[in-house]
Amino acid sequence: MDIEALNTPAAVVDIARMNRNIQQMQNRLNALGVRFRPHVKTTKCEQIVRAQIAGGAQGITVSTLKEAEQFFAKGITDIVYAVGMVPTKLNQALALRRQGCDLKIVADSVQSAEGIATFGRKHEQAFEVWIEVDVDGHRSGINPEDDLLITVGRALTEGGMKLGGVLAHAGSSYEYSKHEELVRIAEQERAGAVQAAERLRAAGLSCPVVSIGSTPTALSAEHLEGVTEVRAGVYVMFDLVMHNVGVCETSDIALSVLTTVIGHQEDKGWAIVDAGWMAMSRDRGTQRQEHDFGYGLVCTQDGKAIGDYLMSSANQEHGIISRTGSPDWNIASRFPIGTRLRILPNHACATGAQHPEYQAVSEDGAVETWPRFYGW
Amino acid sequence: MDIEALNTPAAVVDIARMNRNIQQMQNRLNALGVRFRPHVKTTKCEQIVRAQIAGGAQGITVSTLKEAEQFFAKGITDIVYAVGMVPTKLNQALALRRQGCDLKIVADSVQSAEGIATFGRKHEQAFEVWIEVDVDGHRSGINPEDDLLITVGRALTEGGMKLGGVLAHAGSSYEYSKHEELVRIAEQERAGAVQAAERLRAAGLSCPVVSIGSTPTALSAEHLEGVTEVRAGVYVMFDLVMHNVGVCETSDIALSVLTTVIGHQEDKGWAIVDAGWMAMSRDRGTQRQEHDFGYGLVCTQDGKAIGDYLMSSANQEHGIISRTGSPDWNIASRFPIGTRLRILPNHACATGAQHPEYQAVSEDGAVETWPRFYGW
Repeated sequence: MDIEALNTPAAVVDIARMNRNIQQMQNRLNALGVRFRPHVKTTKCEQIVRAQIAGGAQGITVSTLKEAEQFFAKGITDIVYAVGMVPTKLNQALALRRQGCDLKIVADSVQSAEGIATFGRKHEQAFEVWIEVDVDGHRSGINPEDDLLITVGRALTEGGMKLGGVLAHAGSSYEYSKHEELVRIAEQERAGAVQAAERLRAAGLSCPVVSIGSTPTALSAEHLEGVTEVRAGVYVMFDLVMHNVGVCETSDIALSVLTTVIGHQEDKGWAIVDAGWMAMSRDRGTQRQEHDFGYGLVCTQDGKAIGDYLMSSANQEHGIISRTGSPDWNIASRFPIGTRLRILPNHACATGAQHPEYQAVSEDGAVETWPRFYGW
Repeated sequence: MDIEALNTPAAVVDIARMNRNIQQMQNRLNALGVRFRPHVKTTKCEQIVRAQIAGGAQGITVSTLKEAEQFFAKGITDIVYAVGMVPTKLNQALALRRQGCDLKIVADSVQSAEGIATFGRKHEQAFEVWIEVDVDGHRSGINPEDDLLITVGRALTEGGMKLGGVLAHAGSSYEYSKHEELVRIAEQERAGAVQAAERLRAAGLSCPVVSIGSTPTALSAEHLEGVTEVRAGVYVMFDLVMHNVGVCETSDIALSVLTTVIGHQEDKGWAIVDAGWMAMSRDRGTQRQEHDFGYGLVCTQDGKAIGDYLMSSANQEHGIISRTGSPDWNIASRFPIGTRLRILPNHACATGAQHPEYQAVSEDGAVETWPRFYGW
């Protein structure tokens, strides 16, 4: 099968770009002397995760227990579930560990730590727990200077659980666009996580793992002293948000949505395509960045950026393609009905999630279908 | 099973509200003397579509040929594919018609009409085609006053196809919030579609069906003279966008996302929940409306609105709940870890699409799982 044979809309992966992205990140983290644990929430796709592991990744990060179950079923055992654990999910985590999955879970409060410990003792399971550390006020986690850190660590160890490490995620790194800002937030992420680990150790607690990461900080850190592993997800595909952050070129973006022109409104300079927000996702992540790409940047079917054409608006199964700046009154002859285009997405995690599978295109033009899963 | 037994996040349907929404719309269209053809893109769920048909709906509208295939396989034959047809999809449409599906397709250009006619003649299939009419400059379709309408009608009939009717969708109705504006746009939709049909008939062409619709106009039209059928989708669930448009109360919204509190940032007045944008969708449709509901409005687990708590921000699998106006410094005691909440969504079509199934809750508290499909 080749790309001409694909029905539209379809989520297309450029395998050469993906492999380049995988190798670039792995080389960088090898040089920085840390292990790499990719976040599989971006793709939820076996073939892609296998390529990441073949490239040198050690273990995976997941955002749902379904991801843990699916990838454990494929033979991956070293898994961190990087979302705060609640009592109602402990049975699912227990089942995975009893089957031999080396699942690590996360806590950032005494209540959560005690809930895990009580459940673990009742079921004779010493869960390995990592404490989430807040390095940038982004979302979850304990401030590394807060004594709560030690209290949670003690609640775990005294409760019979294994304190495996600390985990931080500088999610605010997405808000920057200058290299020096990214270097600074990367150092803040590193320093906060290392400080938390050192405070736990100084309190007599074990803290072997220091896990940090986001795609922008992983690609910007100048050194990672004290860190043992990095997590990152979107780097494998990249997207227009990451392009605006400044960590990739549009020619690095490995995911696009293949679509067909189905009509025009010539007096408005519009071409209508059969990919709407259902195919692109509703993610408008570039809206508040320096360059707003609408619902995506238009490329030719073979993946070359055309320049100043965007998907400027989207309904469920219709997208509107228009030129930025001045309308293109010749858009109907430029993109006649039946023209096939590829649209680079704002956010690869969100766009991928709209599709049951990727259509993976090799450099020789061959297409393979790679399933992905969804849900919880 | 009851709601307490559900894993979170989950897409919960309140069956009583859904049935009330179905009956309200059907009663209204019965009184207006038109047939009702619900748009199934909102739910892609057999149980819900069966409830719509049991309520009196005649035929369905689809936004993808996959929806047509799935519902035809369930025994529904009267189907309109309401997206402009392109040559590459004609084989799929042909296969459906040859299996006995009474599939109607749509065109709004000479090129598209000629493409359908050429393909139809080659395969000895007289496709029934409806001409899309543009009544509000929203997206696709031919202006009812444009002679192109007659040219396309002739291209179809002279090409051996069946001209089945005209189809209009006043998508701009979503942009209003006052009843008199909705009445006006509803009349504009009706009048434009009827004018198009009359012009076709005056040119000696047959045009039995005059199909219009959107949830806001269907609920606002004062009369539907000349119209034969109405289409609407989101009314079955309703959502916060429709609430802002003014066609439902929050207590009519039948879809919500069940979620669990997993942590807090007390100094910010935040509760963190395990539903992020993956569960809510990235749809921020209320952002440019009068009342911005963030990623959704917070209700108790039994579906009662709490008032001024919103999901104010979302990452992939984390949502941030906060109070509008002033932060709630007691949020950790108000919503302790483990608290289960239901979040009303901005856009039911987008939120539903994130979930492999609905959890449908009866008035007696029993829960049934209703699968939905996705993809193309």
